Amino acid sequence: MSRAVILLSGGLDSTTTLAIAKSQGFECYALSFDYGQKQKSELISATEIAKHFGAVEHRIMHISLSDFGGSALTDDDIEVPEFKESDEIPITYVPARNTIFLSFAMAWAEVLDCQSIFIGVNALDYSGYPDCRQAYIDAFENMANLATKQGVEGQKLSIVTPLIDLNKADIIKIGLSLGVDYSITTTCYQANEKGEACGVCDACEYRKIGFKSAGISDPTRYQ
Amino acid sequence: MSRAVILLSGGLDSTTTLAIAKSQGFECYALSFDYGQKQKSELISATEIAKHFGAVEHRIMHISLSDFGGSALTDDDIEVPEFKESDEIPITYVPARNTIFLSFAMAWAEVLDCQSIFIGVNALDYSGYPDCRQAYIDAFENMANLATKQGVEGQKLSIVTPLIDLNKADIIKIGLSLGVDYSITTTCYQANEKGEACGVCDACEYRKIGFKSAGISDPTRYQ
Repeated sequence: MSRAVILLSGGLDSTTTLAIAKSQGFECYALSFDYGQKQKSELISATEIAKHFGAVEHRIMHISLSDFGGSALTDDDIEVPEFKESDEIPITYVPARNTIFLSFAMAWAEVLDCQSIFIGVNALDYSGYPDCRQAYIDAFENMANLATKQGVEGQKLSIVTPLIDLNKADIIKIGLSLGVDYSITTTCYQANEKGEACGVCDACEYRKIGFKSAGISDPTRYQ
Repeated sequence: MSRAVILLSGGLDSTTTLAIAKSQGFECYALSFDYGQKQKSELISATEIAKHFGAVEHRIMHISLSDFGGSALTDDDIEVPEFKESDEIPITYVPARNTIFLSFAMAWAEVLDCQSIFIGVNALDYSGYPDCRQAYIDAFENMANLATKQGVEGQKLSIVTPLIDLNKADIIKIGLSLGVDYSITTTCYQANEKGEACGVCDACEYRKIGFKSAGISDPTRYQ
């Protein structure tokens, strides 16, 4: 059985990604981050989800991106805005977040002698974050294979992005077919401590659109 | 005045790199890591060095790479070996270390609206770590410019490696010409809490070779 490291935030996309990796026969090592995000309930979700899908191990790394600030998700002085259509990268963007997460995943993968990292990035129905695009993922993979002992020795690391070209509705349908219970996932940027969503941020909006387009009843618990 | 983030371990190379950035007129933001390394005296050195060179700010991020282990520098079950000539990547290699360090530097650089990160990697007189080579640095820079809002908006981030093609003797000569006091730098992989070096590890060996070839008296304090 091959091993895979799965980045698991506890949201809809990463949970579906874990379900996909599991369905493909991987031994799953789930990795989450307490990175100074304002809402921590996603970490409770992640713990429950990792257990549900039988992850061999679930680690929560503590890193304080809030020390740098500069994002509505980590900086107390910046409010999470309500959703609006825009071509601009929103203030919820967290500088270098996916790069930092993937770098830790890369470290763990090398120690586990594992060649696959799954990440639930998605470049449709998303907030336009640059580190969710395929070109970025390809560049990360190329860099990773030059960075590690494993890479130098010819064991190629793959960054697997099963959701990248899917819309939210399709992601939800795939997840349901693989046994995901979306009621325990936390998507909202400012969920309260019970995991209840605000219903107005970008993340809530894309999640709503997904359930609506899929014609599936939305199990999200709102505040 | 342009800003630069400088990765500062407190060793010979990163200290010289800070001195070079300073001499080029950058406002320096020094970044160090308490990453679970066995010897912490390098962090005391880093603090002193950042102050000496007038860094605008010096941050020490706490990340526990020791949770992953797999390296003699972070894993209590693996001893730091004595130096020997070899083509193999030694057990002191820390999986993904430079990638993780550069990722945090990238986050800070973006928040500071800064386009330069200095790192003292060196591909001569080194231990053969893959993440010290120019090909790796180029790939990281390419990835970084696809990852960030700054990159998407056309403000290119550069990963500056002033030491990459220098031998240790030349690094030391440049550092001395820029006012580096090497007696306060800590190079050894297993320095004691007073910052005294073991004299037998790879890092000590390359440092010794450097001072000897430069014909300069070695100020290293040994145990």
